[in-house]
Amino acid sequence: MLPAPRFTAFNPPRRILMGPGPSDVYPEVLAAQSRPTIGHLDPLFVGMMDELKSLIQYAFQTKNEMTMAVSAPGSAGMETCFVNLVEPGEKVIVCRNGVFGERMRQNVERVGAIAVLVDNEWGAPVDPAAVEAALKANPDAKFLAFVHAETSTGALSDAKTLCALAKQYGCLSIVDAVTSLGGVELRVDEWGIDAIYSGSQKCLSCVPGLSPVSFSIAAVEKLKNRKTPVQSWFLDQSLVMAYWTSAGGKRSYHHTAPVNALYALHESLRILAAEGLENAWQRHHEMHLVLRAGLEKLGLNFVVAEDYRLPQLNTVYIPAGVDDAAVRTRLLKDYNLEIGAGLGALAGKAWRIGLMGFGARRENVSLCLKALEEVLN
Amino acid sequence: MLPAPRFTAFNPPRRILMGPGPSDVYPEVLAAQSRPTIGHLDPLFVGMMDELKSLIQYAFQTKNEMTMAVSAPGSAGMETCFVNLVEPGEKVIVCRNGVFGERMRQNVERVGAIAVLVDNEWGAPVDPAAVEAALKANPDAKFLAFVHAETSTGALSDAKTLCALAKQYGCLSIVDAVTSLGGVELRVDEWGIDAIYSGSQKCLSCVPGLSPVSFSIAAVEKLKNRKTPVQSWFLDQSLVMAYWTSAGGKRSYHHTAPVNALYALHESLRILAAEGLENAWQRHHEMHLVLRAGLEKLGLNFVVAEDYRLPQLNTVYIPAGVDDAAVRTRLLKDYNLEIGAGLGALAGKAWRIGLMGFGARRENVSLCLKALEEVLN
Repeated sequence: MLPAPRFTAFNPPRRILMGPGPSDVYPEVLAAQSRPTIGHLDPLFVGMMDELKSLIQYAFQTKNEMTMAVSAPGSAGMETCFVNLVEPGEKVIVCRNGVFGERMRQNVERVGAIAVLVDNEWGAPVDPAAVEAALKANPDAKFLAFVHAETSTGALSDAKTLCALAKQYGCLSIVDAVTSLGGVELRVDEWGIDAIYSGSQKCLSCVPGLSPVSFSIAAVEKLKNRKTPVQSWFLDQSLVMAYWTSAGGKRSYHHTAPVNALYALHESLRILAAEGLENAWQRHHEMHLVLRAGLEKLGLNFVVAEDYRLPQLNTVYIPAGVDDAAVRTRLLKDYNLEIGAGLGALAGKAWRIGLMGFGARRENVSLCLKALEEVLN
Repeated sequence: MLPAPRFTAFNPPRRILMGPGPSDVYPEVLAAQSRPTIGHLDPLFVGMMDELKSLIQYAFQTKNEMTMAVSAPGSAGMETCFVNLVEPGEKVIVCRNGVFGERMRQNVERVGAIAVLVDNEWGAPVDPAAVEAALKANPDAKFLAFVHAETSTGALSDAKTLCALAKQYGCLSIVDAVTSLGGVELRVDEWGIDAIYSGSQKCLSCVPGLSPVSFSIAAVEKLKNRKTPVQSWFLDQSLVMAYWTSAGGKRSYHHTAPVNALYALHESLRILAAEGLENAWQRHHEMHLVLRAGLEKLGLNFVVAEDYRLPQLNTVYIPAGVDDAAVRTRLLKDYNLEIGAGLGALAGKAWRIGLMGFGARRENVSLCLKALEEVLN
């Protein structure tokens, strides 16, 4: 026998999470998650899932029947949209203005489909004029895919306009709302979004590991009319929905649901519903204004122009001569405060300061500003 | 705005989980999971992951470097093995003696590969002679895939012999250990298993949602020499391992790890390591003997012959004239006791009584026997 390793229990410290996610988790969510595990086909659990579905519908502002949480993180939510909707050989206009647009391209190509790229600078939003030009030039395109809130840069794109363009040119829209959901205005039905995915660990302030997803009627039609099987068994929505929908009170087993994580998501969405979406959007905006004023006083410059700046993710350039890693390490060690490093093209050049969900509160902003002031001086 | 739904907090009862999983979760695991969320790149978290990796290696009895937990349930662990190793057009011998062998076939075909089926009756183990015949008849086969412990029937197959056959005929072995890990003897290195996956929610008594996975050196070679890209971005092991391995102290972000669920898995594997694998196997066996004696006294007959019976999953025929659903509902409502329904070919014909991990203890066995006696009479 290989010997048994001996480790002590893992007791993480209480960090203040102000990076790009995971965000500070609501204490009520951690408590909900630790309630006793029950069976994934237990009638009480199934009742909880029905509630969860309507809470996700509320957060997305949609009546879409095909609305659920993928049993895996946001990246799997992204993959769920691409593998279910896009078939080999089909053309997808992919907008790329950061890491996650690039990840969309990789998803498209791994499906065997063709990605037509619309590139925008890192830190800039997706340019609707460039998208329209691509749609015109590619009348055979079937999809428009873009990131609503780019987590790698902090830029917000105009999802409403982009989805209207998609519709105008006969495309279905696939939207990444990982960082936007709960933090900024997002209206799936009103804006005509066809497929959308998010993550539990950003503005919902739930534990990481789940991805809320929703498909419009048109997206469901596309899925039903596929000529080829979905390449992923685990992410095949037509199989998954047999578990997420009570057909005559009966649910079909697909995989064992992450029971406790779903308790957590239920609780975090209950908190969001109690606050009200519009109030949550407003709170993120207000906290952003306080943080912005303080960061500017410290002489820090934003990567993203004010008009397109995400309130929940503030990306600022690292001042010349400042040691990126040393600052983040001091914040973490001395203040238990986590801010995010730059990602991709912004690695080593920027910090990402998150104000997400439960993290978007006055005491976090003040601590972050004072700690930065102390460490930078 | 669509209106906000109002629901009360979800307070599940304390069930006794004696179905096919999720099993009773250790209280320490629920407590570990509810500790404060920290960042997925926090040095303390990364240290915890290193410990977790060696705990998974211990549970599998392997030194495989490519050992980690997939951030999704066992079905995604299965898919991880197939999409990373099997390329389109390759031939896989798939042993099918229950639901999960059939799921393997679907995975093989969705990869664009060819499944050669070796069918055995439901309730019977995989027949090594039939496997050898298939290996002989298909010299171009590259893989042998089988389920070690069939969760749909409760049958244990001889993984050691099957993996030796795979090796003899130049095939890599892909083994489903979802229900076997921690409950019966399993030795990945000694038996020469090339790719294996399990689930957190069976004999590890962790919360559902994670899948421990391990690849041998030969499997890693196969992955490295692929001619085609892995069709899943989320499950691409070469990307995932850049996060699970410290290369010069640096880890690459792939997706946001399910931080709290990984705390839980760390704790459950710590408990397993403290008990010792062989002691855990022995405990499952002993509890099975007590349960078996009691079930036989009640006149219940096992589906699986004694030689191939899983101690952790006892499948018995429902006596003639007994209302399947009514009995399970009474057990659940009056005793808070969950036993499993039959699955697939055994639906309506059998019950599955689990003795998994923390669930394999004397008080559970006694309660189950007495409750069944009361409900059946």
